[in-house]
Amino acid sequence: MNFGSDNASGVHPAIMQALHAANEGTAPSYGRDALTRAAVDRVREVFAAPAAEVFMLGTGTGANALALAQFCPPWGRIFCHRTAHIETSESGAPAFAAGGAQLALIDGADGRIAPDSLRARLTDYPQEDEHDGRNAVLSLTNATEWGTVYAPAAVAALAGIAHDGGLALHMDGARFANAVAATGATPAALTHASGVDVLSLGGTKGGCLALEAVVIFDPARAGDFLFRRMRAGHLWSKHRFLAAQMLAWLDDDLWLGLARHANAMAAGLHAQIRQAGHELIQPVEANEIFLRLPRSEIARLRAAGLRAADWPTPGDDTDRGTIRLVTSWATTDAEIEALAALL
Amino acid sequence: MNFGSDNASGVHPAIMQALHAANEGTAPSYGRDALTRAAVDRVREVFAAPAAEVFMLGTGTGANALALAQFCPPWGRIFCHRTAHIETSESGAPAFAAGGAQLALIDGADGRIAPDSLRARLTDYPQEDEHDGRNAVLSLTNATEWGTVYAPAAVAALAGIAHDGGLALHMDGARFANAVAATGATPAALTHASGVDVLSLGGTKGGCLALEAVVIFDPARAGDFLFRRMRAGHLWSKHRFLAAQMLAWLDDDLWLGLARHANAMAAGLHAQIRQAGHELIQPVEANEIFLRLPRSEIARLRAAGLRAADWPTPGDDTDRGTIRLVTSWATTDAEIEALAALL
Amino acid sequence: MNFGSDNASGVHPAIMQALHAANEGTAPSYGRDALTRAAVDRVREVFAAPAAEVFMLGTGTGANALALAQFCPPWGRIFCHRTAHIETSESGAPAFAAGGAQLALIDGADGRIAPDSLRARLTDYPQEDEHDGRNAVLSLTNATEWGTVYAPAAVAALAGIAHDGGLALHMDGARFANAVAATGATPAALTHASGVDVLSLGGTKGGCLALEAVVIFDPARAGDFLFRRMRAGHLWSKHRFLAAQMLAWLDDDLWLGLARHANAMAAGLHAQIRQAGHELIQPVEANEIFLRLPRSEIARLRAAGLRAADWPTPGDDTDRGTIRLVTSWATTDAEIEALAALL
Amino acid sequence: MNFGSDNASGVHPAIMQALHAANEGTAPSYGRDALTRAAVDRVREVFAAPAAEVFMLGTGTGANALALAQFCPPWGRIFCHRTAHIETSESGAPAFAAGGAQLALIDGADGRIAPDSLRARLTDYPQEDEHDGRNAVLSLTNATEWGTVYAPAAVAALAGIAHDGGLALHMDGARFANAVAATGATPAALTHASGVDVLSLGGTKGGCLALEAVVIFDPARAGDFLFRRMRAGHLWSKHRFLAAQMLAWLDDDLWLGLARHANAMAAGLHAQIRQAGHELIQPVEANEIFLRLPRSEIARLRAAGLRAADWPTPGDDTDRGTIRLVTSWATTDAEIEALAALL
Repeated sequence: MNFGSDNASGVHPAIMQALHAANEGTAPSYGRDALTRAAVDRVREVFAAPAAEVFMLGTGTGANALALAQFCPPWGRIFCHRTAHIETSESGAPAFAAGGAQLALIDGADGRIAPDSLRARLTDYPQEDEHDGRNAVLSLTNATEWGTVYAPAAVAALAGIAHDGGLALHMDGARFANAVAATGATPAALTHASGVDVLSLGGTKGGCLALEAVVIFDPARAGDFLFRRMRAGHLWSKHRFLAAQMLAWLDDDLWLGLARHANAMAAGLHAQIRQAGHELIQPVEANEIFLRLPRSEIARLRAAGLRAADWPTPGDDTDRGTIRLVTSWATTDAEIEALAALL
Repeated sequence: MNFGSDNASGVHPAIMQALHAANEGTAPSYGRDALTRAAVDRVREVFAAPAAEVFMLGTGTGANALALAQFCPPWGRIFCHRTAHIETSESGAPAFAAGGAQLALIDGADGRIAPDSLRARLTDYPQEDEHDGRNAVLSLTNATEWGTVYAPAAVAALAGIAHDGGLALHMDGARFANAVAATGATPAALTHASGVDVLSLGGTKGGCLALEAVVIFDPARAGDFLFRRMRAGHLWSKHRFLAAQMLAWLDDDLWLGLARHANAMAAGLHAQIRQAGHELIQPVEANEIFLRLPRSEIARLRAAGLRAADWPTPGDDTDRGTIRLVTSWATTDAEIEALAALL
Repeated sequence: MNFGSDNASGVHPAIMQALHAANEGTAPSYGRDALTRAAVDRVREVFAAPAAEVFMLGTGTGANALALAQFCPPWGRIFCHRTAHIETSESGAPAFAAGGAQLALIDGADGRIAPDSLRARLTDYPQEDEHDGRNAVLSLTNATEWGTVYAPAAVAALAGIAHDGGLALHMDGARFANAVAATGATPAALTHASGVDVLSLGGTKGGCLALEAVVIFDPARAGDFLFRRMRAGHLWSKHRFLAAQMLAWLDDDLWLGLARHANAMAAGLHAQIRQAGHELIQPVEANEIFLRLPRSEIARLRAAGLRAADWPTPGDDTDRGTIRLVTSWATTDAEIEALAALL
Repeated sequence: MNFGSDNASGVHPAIMQALHAANEGTAPSYGRDALTRAAVDRVREVFAAPAAEVFMLGTGTGANALALAQFCPPWGRIFCHRTAHIETSESGAPAFAAGGAQLALIDGADGRIAPDSLRARLTDYPQEDEHDGRNAVLSLTNATEWGTVYAPAAVAALAGIAHDGGLALHMDGARFANAVAATGATPAALTHASGVDVLSLGGTKGGCLALEAVVIFDPARAGDFLFRRMRAGHLWSKHRFLAAQMLAWLDDDLWLGLARHANAMAAGLHAQIRQAGHELIQPVEANEIFLRLPRSEIARLRAAGLRAADWPTPGDDTDRGTIRLVTSWATTDAEIEALAALL
């Protein structure tokens, strides 16, 4: 019963098989190979974005940091939710990549930023002169760090405010597949058609070995990104093995099938938890569940084999704590049932 | 006949098999898994360096840049050969990682730095006061960019000068296995026993999919390296798949066997080329050959299927140019014979 | 009636005179001159800190950024009040100087950070592993951006929490003289004796032309600061003209006399404002007054010659806005009376 | 007899007087004052560049670093002479300001870069792909570090090569006034009319207290420079005191008069040295003389009161060393005669 994180899961067999298949003979290195060209084209197709620039790399923090740096000057400011991964878990990667940029945090229920909150936060930096720095990017995480999602209309509302304020819109899509599966929206609808300028598209949590992509929808804004990736050490030499993952992951909508599975597992568990009367911290919309339990109960579950992260949350006290349960493409019915039985 | 680069080759079957074997069930992410611990221990064992700190990541540029930054302050200077990869091919990665550090280039025959050249170059920056910046690191590439090697005594001679001048000694070991194979020295003799403080150990060119390691021999100098790697986006979430490569690569000296093979292929080709009377630019000691030929001959070879990089070199003229031939773990006798027949 | 900022005032005659006096003959450049040595010694004396390292430069943002960078690694976090100058008005200077460090903002009444607020904010970054970045520095502004002060006991309470959490304590003393004057504490009591590790000592607002200093109380923590200042371009070549300002400013406690004057002018104006029944946003403890007035009244005052900055503050509405009035060493009784008469 | 450096001299009385005159009443801070507007206009006039953007600050290293960063991406390369101040004496400031840019050094007699040398050096970085980084800027120093000058035709020749290669042209004009005086060219002819894109205009060595300016001739390329200066801490709050220096320095061609004086002093000393038969390292064209003497003679001169920097130069040996003599606006005939008498 490992609900610790979706990156505790392994690699989907079809993707592993694709790595094997790509391992034939020689291929040009550094992304000049045919598989890379095919993978880029496939991403464009899936996103209905024939002109988009697509850059693959191996880590989500790398993808976020480089994507943000592309749209944020060193004296720029990136607005994001207070619980965004770029704030809590990347050790300052965006600031490093962007040469010193700052994050401006926004509160919001359920891991989401509300339009009014964004509007209000923007007024904190009125852009009168050079003392203020530049308001540069809004970064949304979809699905959010709290397992909720933004539907296209919500993205578009925030995009409107962002663009009016001169900000580019970045989407941290470490769990973008889960968001697509949850909303039923097309990849296009959830990104460029709703105003997203640049997407960190995450494959690793969704069943790949190590695969992320930065997708810049307007190619005019992708200038020198190759240099940015190179000097950050994020250009793979045997690049075909990134491309092979991408092709297999997108093939026949495998990526969405796996995300639907993860979401369904979470929904099933969610139903069991509600039935058991336990306290849920917030809505369950994708593949994460936040559950408040007596600490003794948490200890009992762990003793019985549960793996789940502690997730300290306002409202916890000495008796009751919060844990996070994450399902993945590899979660099984048996695991759900085993946990439900324990609960 | 692809002699373009050793990173045009694929992944050795044993390493691919190890990726498969590692893909069982769940594992803690971010390097907290058992395979990672085992791989770190294995590196320590191979290097006879039980206290060394070992950090794995996916790219050689990432490894070099982070290794250098660990030993070089933002106002520091890194001495290296004029043809070092960190100077010619990493788009400023060391300066980025180290917050602005500068490279100080040194000339030297056959891709090597001579002790006197290092001594002379150090006097260019006399360290009188803060205008001068700090002389911080000497970076040696072994095997060099020109397919030659430093034996332990050569490393030790340079290490002595470096350490006397207050510099740490970094070794760019993208082809370290080839250097070990060529010199017959132990990994320990070629590194810490000769004064190397930090090694970028390259597995990718040697048969892995994407695997490099930063090895810091004195753990007291490894402080906060985890943060450095994290914020550069070089911490893999499914870290077991780096570790699995390392274990398979080192297992039963596979890494050295593959390197010996690559070196032997180069030696065989070298013999044929000498026999044919062609002009070799310099000694062939590892897995690279630099060959000057009439440009018409180069065109003929390429038309016949040869892949090799142009390598403009002083002495080239309108009639004659230089090409680089790189052998790898995957180069076959048949390829050597085919090329020899053409020559 | 210019109450726009204390840096709208000019240079005190004694300091201008000192610049003249220093302009005799030649002097070693870059701080190797006798005046600089004397000024450093004088700062040590005034702060009762004989071992402190003292570095002069020309701007407050430079002083803050370099001071913070000295104590904050690139992956570090600087805790400060939400209204701190380093957050609102330096365009990311600390992040730039520190190679990517982040600010973590803390709310607090009257521009001050309360101990409990600091404790709570620290728990947001639990320092479990490298994802979290390093909690590195607490930066207090004294006098604060809201014209209030921290007394030694308040500094010490925060210093205790900071040091327990592994943070260094920085004090932004752009208006440090005003804080000394307001609290009656000695410079030592308000800094190192209360746990301050590094002070940005501001002379410019206090009557100098361009003079700030970074004072590092423990010389063991000042390593390589000279390099840091140099490569940031903050080492003056004709350094004697920084030193001359410092000597004149500190001479015979001129700096405190000027600060007392500024504070007294604010106190006098404050009394008049209270008498007139206007709304003060918060206590007046140093040389700044924040005043909420009908917008029509603000317009009337400006038409009559008042210079003061708009200072949008929660509680403002369409009818009433807030302005900031700053007094300086050069503010005259006549100006106070003129404004009082208008009010 | 202080010939140590032109920044060992003090401030010209007219400039000191201007500081006094500017110290009347209050003035808007941060460059929003009338004196600043006037100074900017005056620079435009002097350079016959009505659209140029002009940014003042206090140090030459600051000016160089920010000017270069404005034209060089973080993955860019700055070509300069091996003895350029930005290489030898700024502790990595350009790399810091530009977020990691690298210097590419060029040899050249008499401190000058020859067109062929520039052409050859550019071929070292063929700009094939992102591994190479971007060739971004050529930086010329005029007058050079060796007291020689580039005439407009020489600048234009190098500018042509630079621009053809996609490089911007920066001029380090710490001693620009001396170059104008030496060549007799107009400021315009020596800069934008010859292809200079950005100038670091140095006033400090030329008689100011602390005044440099970055002049960007095409305002379309000055975007966000204000932010760059701000976050580097190089925006003075009492900005009128920069402007006052500039106005006085340019007034009635004072700056050129002072430079002519310095150059004439050097020429006079040069004549005496030649007459005495001493070895001059190279031509004397501006205000610096490089002289090789027996070391015993150097010791004798110093004992007699000479101040001059040791300047180790190829050709020195155990018996003979090189010293640098710099004249300034403040050098007197008496000093020249005294030194000549000693020689």
